[in-house]
Amino acid sequence: MHNALQAAAGRLFIHDVAPRDGFQNESGFIPTERKIELIDALSATGLAKIEVTSFTSPKAIPSLADAEAVMKGIARAPGVRYTALVPNERGCERALACGVDEINLVMSVSLSHSLANLRRTPETSIRDFARIVRQAESRASIACSLSTAFGCPFEGEVAPGPVMTAIEQLVDIGIDAIVLCDTTGMAHPRQVYEVFTRVGTRWPALALTAHFHDTRGMGLANVLAALQAGVVRFDASLGGLGGCPYAPGADGNVCTEDLVHMLALMGYDTGVDLSGLVRAASLLAQMIDHPLSSRLLRAGPSSRRYPLPEAARHPG
Amino acid sequence: MHNALQAAAGRLFIHDVAPRDGFQNESGFIPTERKIELIDALSATGLAKIEVTSFTSPKAIPSLADAEAVMKGIARAPGVRYTALVPNERGCERALACGVDEINLVMSVSLSHSLANLRRTPETSIRDFARIVRQAESRASIACSLSTAFGCPFEGEVAPGPVMTAIEQLVDIGIDAIVLCDTTGMAHPRQVYEVFTRVGTRWPALALTAHFHDTRGMGLANVLAALQAGVVRFDASLGGLGGCPYAPGADGNVCTEDLVHMLALMGYDTGVDLSGLVRAASLLAQMIDHPLSSRLLRAGPSSRRYPLPEAARHPG
Repeated sequence: MHNALQAAAGRLFIHDVAPRDGFQNESGFIPTERKIELIDALSATGLAKIEVTSFTSPKAIPSLADAEAVMKGIARAPGVRYTALVPNERGCERALACGVDEINLVMSVSLSHSLANLRRTPETSIRDFARIVRQAESRASIACSLSTAFGCPFEGEVAPGPVMTAIEQLVDIGIDAIVLCDTTGMAHPRQVYEVFTRVGTRWPALALTAHFHDTRGMGLANVLAALQAGVVRFDASLGGLGGCPYAPGADGNVCTEDLVHMLALMGYDTGVDLSGLVRAASLLAQMIDHPLSSRLLRAGPSSRRYPLPEAARHPG
Repeated sequence: MHNALQAAAGRLFIHDVAPRDGFQNESGFIPTERKIELIDALSATGLAKIEVTSFTSPKAIPSLADAEAVMKGIARAPGVRYTALVPNERGCERALACGVDEINLVMSVSLSHSLANLRRTPETSIRDFARIVRQAESRASIACSLSTAFGCPFEGEVAPGPVMTAIEQLVDIGIDAIVLCDTTGMAHPRQVYEVFTRVGTRWPALALTAHFHDTRGMGLANVLAALQAGVVRFDASLGGLGGCPYAPGADGNVCTEDLVHMLALMGYDTGVDLSGLVRAASLLAQMIDHPLSSRLLRAGPSSRRYPLPEAARHPG
């Protein structure tokens, strides 16, 4: 077991998914220039990766209908990788035409979620991905996000077996970057530790990312468990933006600024400027019409100091 | 390091503090019979301990002015320990007259918080406690909650040194049960692991309890770290009730039902019936005039299943 509680290991890599995973779940359309403003603010914080948008059909996800305009409008910072979700070959071509650094493919581990969310079986997803991998060739790297890798809202807990099988098939078609997603916030720390340990042991060269939701409050506890399983890459969403259609009103993705705050306190080097992140979250708060779940926005960092009350300066 | 991520250890002991720590922070007065109703609902869930009230001056904390009536009105369940906060000898006498099982004394580790919150120095607190220990004799057991054991809103991070010194002095006057409190939600997992490991190693026979706040979202991550340091007793508050005067609007105590839910998923035996706890939280939600931070109330447990959408049953 990695000793995350006794000594921080080196560098961690934080990926923000708010512009895609977050905005996708917003009912109102965020104007293109505001999206660009937010992504540019994120780019300045030192994040390793930003999921910019989704090259889906505008009919399917109207809130991200401006994928090309956003991708072309942002100022690309050196050192930041810009990724976009791609559902099919058409989307891949659009993303490549915008010069994305990475294509993010998504499939579900559980059959029910795959049918409900993607209208295809996991086997069909993998067959489609094989074509997209050839299509992208050397023009962009490929990652695959595995939804319902820990639990499925229709089927319940997902065992490590199907996760291992899916990864095996993805590795076979040439994918070497995998994101294990707790799509509806069902994972718990022991499960997280077990799954990431098994995957990391079986494929030590795989670039593994953990993507947690905070639906049941276990987001940062699951991060701690993943750290102890050796995970160094984490998806999170600015302001905790993003949701889960199966838990209306519940918190969504792990909040980037809350995550970076905890990791910094623990002595990790994330390369991310926390105050810049909080400024970006304040900007985000102005763009949307509901409160963010961000704790840092509400409470400030642990380092925040309060003036001593007058009465305490002259105790009776 | 205890292997909480690889195999659950045995029994954990959950203490609910909502009737005291929670109600104390409510602006409105909860009627006595409703308090009793809530505590009776909590008693039926299998909690190890309930902090019923505070025997403070009614002028200082009007919301708990009915301490005697509540303590005498509840139906005491076998196996549950009933504790009450006591600030001084007068309060101790009142608590003993009601037959509490335990007296909960509170002092702050940091001088500023001690002066601001208790209007006395930590040294004065310990001197007062020595008298209360003699006063309580064999009529009730004594525990001491150490506020600002990880961080102080006026002074910043609190080092383990002052915590060790305070415990040493408390042990010297005969106290063998200590609660380390992260009063304003400043603690992080590495710090939690370090402090509990040091205290547990130095005083292995001490009954140690962890009391976390979720102000910065690290509540359950800190629980995970404490478990790995060997802690088996946890304070939490039904519905996440309770707050922090230095972070208005921020989440308060770790939420009991969210805590029990995570521990149950991890395979721990808490002795607590989660569905009973959620029913009690629903009852609590009707008593107060603001939303609770409880995730379980909003999202339901991880085991919750959703019907598969019709379209997914007949994929095109």
